[in-house]
Amino acid sequence: MKYTAQVRVMPLKDLLDPQGKAVLGGLNNLGLHAVSDVRIGKHIDLIVEASSAEEAKAVASHAAKQLLANPVMETFEVHVV
Amino acid sequence: MKYTAQVRVMPLKDLLDPQGKAVLGGLNNLGLHAVSDVRIGKHIDLIVEASSAEEAKAVASHAAKQLLANPVMETFEVHVV
Repeated sequence: MKYTAQVRVMPLKDLLDPQGKAVLGGLNNLGLHAVSDVRIGKHIDLIVEASSAEEAKAVASHAAKQLLANPVMETFEVHVV
Repeated sequence: MKYTAQVRVMPLKDLLDPQGKAVLGGLNNLGLHAVSDVRIGKHIDLIVEASSAEEAKAVASHAAKQLLANPVMETFEVHVV
């Protein structure tokens, strides 16, 4: 059966996020002063062939550890839908 | 009150996603043949100062339309948590 595993990769909280800071500056320049902070990560949809949602989640977690996330700078979360 | 608005920006379904195709090739090279498709987008957390969740969502949607998403190539969804 095919499952969609959603992997969210975000920069670690303690690290600077220069892309987010640049977008925050852009939003403030556009007059959106209600936004006080921006952090930008990746959202990755994996279509996984697996016999159960747990197996799909294990495959996606393995993929995240091996390739999708850099543990020195990023954290990841996996949800299977 | 401070709300976190999560904006997910994904490439349109009908468009090629070369980054996703490259990651799919990488996962297959690593032996993860259970993954049959990959699509990669952005996950953006906005910290929004607003009086209600609805107002925070409106600010985030406005930000997405103005700056975060390119409607020619991308769709976006907003969730306030």
